[in-house]
Amino acid sequence: MSSPAVDAVLATPAPAAAARTDVARAFAPASVGNVAVGFDILGHSMVEAGDRAEVRRLAEPEVRIAAIRGCVADLPLEPHKNTAGAALLAMREALDLPFGFELTLHKGIALGSGMGGSAASCVAALVAANALLEQPLSREALYRFALEGEAVASGSRHGDNLGPMLLGGLVLATHERLLRIPVPPAWHCALVHPHCVLETRKARAALAGNYALGEFVAQSANLALLLAGCFRGDAALVREGLKDVLVEPRRAPLVPGFIRVKQAALDHHAFGASISGGGPSVFGWYACRADADAAASAMRAAFAEAGLDSDTFVAPVDGPAATLVDALPDEA
Amino acid sequence: MSSPAVDAVLATPAPAAAARTDVARAFAPASVGNVAVGFDILGHSMVEAGDRAEVRRLAEPEVRIAAIRGCVADLPLEPHKNTAGAALLAMREALDLPFGFELTLHKGIALGSGMGGSAASCVAALVAANALLEQPLSREALYRFALEGEAVASGSRHGDNLGPMLLGGLVLATHERLLRIPVPPAWHCALVHPHCVLETRKARAALAGNYALGEFVAQSANLALLLAGCFRGDAALVREGLKDVLVEPRRAPLVPGFIRVKQAALDHHAFGASISGGGPSVFGWYACRADADAAASAMRAAFAEAGLDSDTFVAPVDGPAATLVDALPDEA
Repeated sequence: MSSPAVDAVLATPAPAAAARTDVARAFAPASVGNVAVGFDILGHSMVEAGDRAEVRRLAEPEVRIAAIRGCVADLPLEPHKNTAGAALLAMREALDLPFGFELTLHKGIALGSGMGGSAASCVAALVAANALLEQPLSREALYRFALEGEAVASGSRHGDNLGPMLLGGLVLATHERLLRIPVPPAWHCALVHPHCVLETRKARAALAGNYALGEFVAQSANLALLLAGCFRGDAALVREGLKDVLVEPRRAPLVPGFIRVKQAALDHHAFGASISGGGPSVFGWYACRADADAAASAMRAAFAEAGLDSDTFVAPVDGPAATLVDALPDEA
Repeated sequence: MSSPAVDAVLATPAPAAAARTDVARAFAPASVGNVAVGFDILGHSMVEAGDRAEVRRLAEPEVRIAAIRGCVADLPLEPHKNTAGAALLAMREALDLPFGFELTLHKGIALGSGMGGSAASCVAALVAANALLEQPLSREALYRFALEGEAVASGSRHGDNLGPMLLGGLVLATHERLLRIPVPPAWHCALVHPHCVLETRKARAALAGNYALGEFVAQSANLALLLAGCFRGDAALVREGLKDVLVEPRRAPLVPGFIRVKQAALDHHAFGASISGGGPSVFGWYACRADADAAASAMRAAFAEAGLDSDTFVAPVDGPAATLVDALPDEA
């Protein structure tokens, strides 16, 4: 005797299933790239903001972008110039698919915010498109397509935002692979996004030039302390390690009010605080949500002193990965 | 009723105990500094070689070096010019001790070998002297004195050799602290020391100049993979990470036959292989002792092809810390 519930699943008619897989929608969360000590290789997801993508299967073997809506609209609709479009092109070509994709993006992350907006569009589009494949790929297998898309946005192949969106949580992202790093569930991030734009390419240009070996030794030690602290769930080690001595000094002048905002973050028992991704957003890590909430308010006030309104986000460091969703936001 | 054995211990006469603590002897193992991806911050002990120190308590508040014997004899006897002497001076001054130390060193590690010879002298002397204190310090508390000694030898305060000698095993050593990193007991290191000298200062001079940010990113990713592999006991991650893209290319020309020796190390299933410390010794990591033994022989043969005789050492990566011992080697 089989149960009615199992029978119902087994009896799902094939045509309905096929119809259901002609379109899929996904949400990819924002992320904090670099995490102070892992430039280009370390990031974590921040579920409080994100991009959504709707992907429709096309009979024609091509990639089209139907529309871009939400908080950013003036992005290129030519797929090879668009970060999400380029990711879908890379997927279609690598898998030699006999069909194509039509993409509609709903941006929930501002461009040039340091919250991984370009990566979120890539990942949301890939996760939705993946659901339309006969044999969907693993999240790790989507990574190389996502890197192609990210390169369109920033001119650099780096996965510190893509990795956490694909796998969730804190992720080490090399050129070749992703690895999730354990983080205690109580640890929270406060992320504050001031209403000004810092283009990723400009943020990267601030890093041009040469570096001394000693700078790297100090930053490596901090990275090692942070990783050891995460693997051991030891906040004291993270407090020692969560300090960017390499990149932050070069980028801080590009973020209005940075010194005061960082101090506000630290004043609320932060493990550490720094610039999120290429900036101008600033983040701090905390032992609990209450500290992160208090810090977010103080950081917002500090940006206000610098003449900038801002949005605040508080979420667990060990945040979720991108997921399939039922619908794009209603914009009626 | 108490047991005779306990009675015997309790009955140990106080004068005998006091006499026993007038002199102490310690052994500090060799070490592999840098471990390819942790320049100046990561090292592990190698128990198959080491230095010994005998320290005698002096009534006078001074530090003297009575003799230096073993495989190196032409070292300065002025304590502030000698690595172990400087470490004892730092200890005596910091603790404001009302007595002094007389040191006899027995060198088992060749100078300029890349096996942590100067660090081993520091640590052996400090561990022995520590046993003469009324209230001996923790190994972590000895670290700052050891750094003072190491600076005399290399001109740089770095603890990648000191740390593993003080704590044992694989150790992360920042300027401020030591942290032991877990390593599976089966993992072994093959270390081969060719009979030529590469002065630490010369090895450091090869690293002068500027570095590109991209080099740091690649090396950071490797360091992160190595650490994650150790915390998870995952050899595949260590295989990905144990590659020095930053320092080895600059130092390799200083090590005769390096390319062939490294290849010999890799040919025997190494996780990775590189220069030990400042060189010229070369090391590889292996999943088991048998692989490490085979590799050590092949590496020795490769050095022989370059015209160099060499010594081989095979020991667990998770090796022991420095220990008190009963006697210096008999040199009669």
